[in-house]
Amino acid sequence: MIKANDPSLKSWVEVPKYSDFPIQNLPFGIFKTQYLDPGAGVAIGDYILDLTYLDENGFLDGLGLPAGIFNQQYLNTFIGLGKETTRAVRNRISELLDANNDELRDNKPAREIALIPMDEAEMLMPVRVPNYTDFYSSEEHATNVGTMFRDPDNALLPNWKHIPVGYHGRASSIIPSGVDIYRPKGQTKAPDAEKPTFGPSKRLDFELEMAFITGKENGLGNSISTSEAEEYIFGFVLFNDWSARDVQVWEYVPLGPFLAKNFASSISPWIVTMDALEPFRVAGPEQKPEVLPYLKYQGEKNFDVRLQVLLQPEGGAENVICNSNFKYMYWNVNQQLAHHTVNGCNIQVGDMYASGTISGPAEDSYGSMLELAWKGTKPIKLSDGSERKFVEDGDTVIMKGYAEKNGVRIGFGEVRTKVLPAK
Amino acid sequence: MIKANDPSLKSWVEVPKYSDFPIQNLPFGIFKTQYLDPGAGVAIGDYILDLTYLDENGFLDGLGLPAGIFNQQYLNTFIGLGKETTRAVRNRISELLDANNDELRDNKPAREIALIPMDEAEMLMPVRVPNYTDFYSSEEHATNVGTMFRDPDNALLPNWKHIPVGYHGRASSIIPSGVDIYRPKGQTKAPDAEKPTFGPSKRLDFELEMAFITGKENGLGNSISTSEAEEYIFGFVLFNDWSARDVQVWEYVPLGPFLAKNFASSISPWIVTMDALEPFRVAGPEQKPEVLPYLKYQGEKNFDVRLQVLLQPEGGAENVICNSNFKYMYWNVNQQLAHHTVNGCNIQVGDMYASGTISGPAEDSYGSMLELAWKGTKPIKLSDGSERKFVEDGDTVIMKGYAEKNGVRIGFGEVRTKVLPAK
Repeated sequence: MIKANDPSLKSWVEVPKYSDFPIQNLPFGIFKTQYLDPGAGVAIGDYILDLTYLDENGFLDGLGLPAGIFNQQYLNTFIGLGKETTRAVRNRISELLDANNDELRDNKPAREIALIPMDEAEMLMPVRVPNYTDFYSSEEHATNVGTMFRDPDNALLPNWKHIPVGYHGRASSIIPSGVDIYRPKGQTKAPDAEKPTFGPSKRLDFELEMAFITGKENGLGNSISTSEAEEYIFGFVLFNDWSARDVQVWEYVPLGPFLAKNFASSISPWIVTMDALEPFRVAGPEQKPEVLPYLKYQGEKNFDVRLQVLLQPEGGAENVICNSNFKYMYWNVNQQLAHHTVNGCNIQVGDMYASGTISGPAEDSYGSMLELAWKGTKPIKLSDGSERKFVEDGDTVIMKGYAEKNGVRIGFGEVRTKVLPAK
Repeated sequence: MIKANDPSLKSWVEVPKYSDFPIQNLPFGIFKTQYLDPGAGVAIGDYILDLTYLDENGFLDGLGLPAGIFNQQYLNTFIGLGKETTRAVRNRISELLDANNDELRDNKPAREIALIPMDEAEMLMPVRVPNYTDFYSSEEHATNVGTMFRDPDNALLPNWKHIPVGYHGRASSIIPSGVDIYRPKGQTKAPDAEKPTFGPSKRLDFELEMAFITGKENGLGNSISTSEAEEYIFGFVLFNDWSARDVQVWEYVPLGPFLAKNFASSISPWIVTMDALEPFRVAGPEQKPEVLPYLKYQGEKNFDVRLQVLLQPEGGAENVICNSNFKYMYWNVNQQLAHHTVNGCNIQVGDMYASGTISGPAEDSYGSMLELAWKGTKPIKLSDGSERKFVEDGDTVIMKGYAEKNGVRIGFGEVRTKVLPAK
């Protein structure tokens, strides 16, 4: 067991009962405050532990960290140091926050500077994203979409069970939780219309996804096997792959989604390490037909992470509209990375690889409005009496996620985004 | 007229008759030598003018350049200074190289350090590429593909004449001329096979494209109109969008090309500025049906750039296998950028936007092997007596391009890539 994952650990920092950020989590992020420039921090309870301060004041000595490694706009350089180093840092932070360790606990002046209340900080993008890929790895989601738009009897396309289908997305428009988005404008064409028209999307949707972030390069021309994949994965975030369905259906043939997706993707700002998720591994679904040898894998590669989507109308209450789980993925992250690099494609530090919409078997586990309201035929009822077929102006969409076992909750915080009217 | 474009200008540097790099061109690139770290240079004849040296020795004083602007691995920061500054630098370099200017001409010690023979330098990636988009803007190419794979009577899909169709490509695997590639491996499935198989691609192809590089940000949520687009475009390179056709046909439904393309894209290393191409503007084809208002434009937005593809078998001679022209594009770069941002998608400095395969009306002007050998039915004959349906191991593919008028040739140099057997 990784030292910092020990369920018996307790911190001297008070951690509220249902906090996403107990001492067993210790996710990394980039924050700024009124007084501090952007820099790296770790979440603990309702606080952010300022890594720049710890590093500059000797608390991280002996770990071989380059000078100024945390005093940066992005975590890329830190993550790129490799898992051995980042794991050692997480273990050392665990030690410093341990209730039995007095180094920081009993050093009141240092403690008061090092711990910053979350509500005094703004979370920024944790990494600069050199490349972003979106997979399509939930069988339920692919089946639902195929049923709605193609043939219910042949909902999955012939390649789907052989390939972890994916495509390249837009890296520039990935934004952190809390940044509002504008409803995108675009070309759409009604099936019976002669010509397309231009205007704000009428079918704005979210997609509930998770994304992994890579921390190691393979170099162009080299493949990563399913058994090597985890060396390359630093951690995970929640990922809202905003989608304009009416734009998508008109533009996507033959080269895939483009303007329907690239106006924004929103992420939760804390990167939960793959290390912290170790205790929550579960087996994935059986894969039939048998996959090609380069996609075979050993061990439990799915993760039991409960996921929720909430929708809050302007000035209204938050409504839970989806309960799903990361464990439903048909294709796991090891397979995704092995497939992505089997042709020699090169992975870079900070890349994001999103799962695709995570839908489960139950109707309330579908990870998009398109599926939840079944193409508009089953509107979602909200607590204020209103209904939704798609996301409306003024709505805030919130995604949350956590893994829980043995009284330990490893949470992701949230990704919260308000939709403003088209500019 | 831009000062540096004057066709009557002559340089004191000897420029061979058919050189791509007369004093009217002055493209920017990043080079290194045995003695010099990577830094910015400008091509003149068979030489590279070392901008770091010029800058550090006062030759570029008065232009308001930040310290160390050329002593960098990439041109992004320089390009991001804006067109007013980059244009002023090009004009000043033109002045320094002018036969009538004695500043550098008669300063032998400086001249000998500042001018580096091209054959003593290695050209590197000119920019770090934050985002890469590939369009599909040649009507002839889209028609050829549609004819071969779909319905000859309805070769163009319904959206093609309404949308400059594009998709996101992989930025990490864009490499400069001179870097060999390995034949990619991947999943393919023969139409009559029951299951897919895995192995080296048997249908490796090139795509003759050009790409523009952006030098200005719009900011997420803001659109760029067709009339504003040129403020955002710094310059152009030749672009070889390597494609594994057998992988592509199996993987691309429904989300577009992925592993078929992301193993490598090769570019020419000199960025020819949009300024240098000004004299070569021509009208594009008439667009019918009428495009939506946001895609309308005024003026001549196509460029008359002659393009060539050559194929050189291992140890053999170079064979010209394609003569095309950038002017054939149905959708112009202004329309591409306006479309890309109409939903608020944000452009970054150093982004590459490739044209899509540039095919013309004549059979020898098709920009891919797929089209030239018409899906393998009309093999290309080479001078050594061999034939090609697709690119073979050991083949080198070379793309060249230049614009020419009034005795002035504005050339792109070349992108030259050898294909090695699969790893």
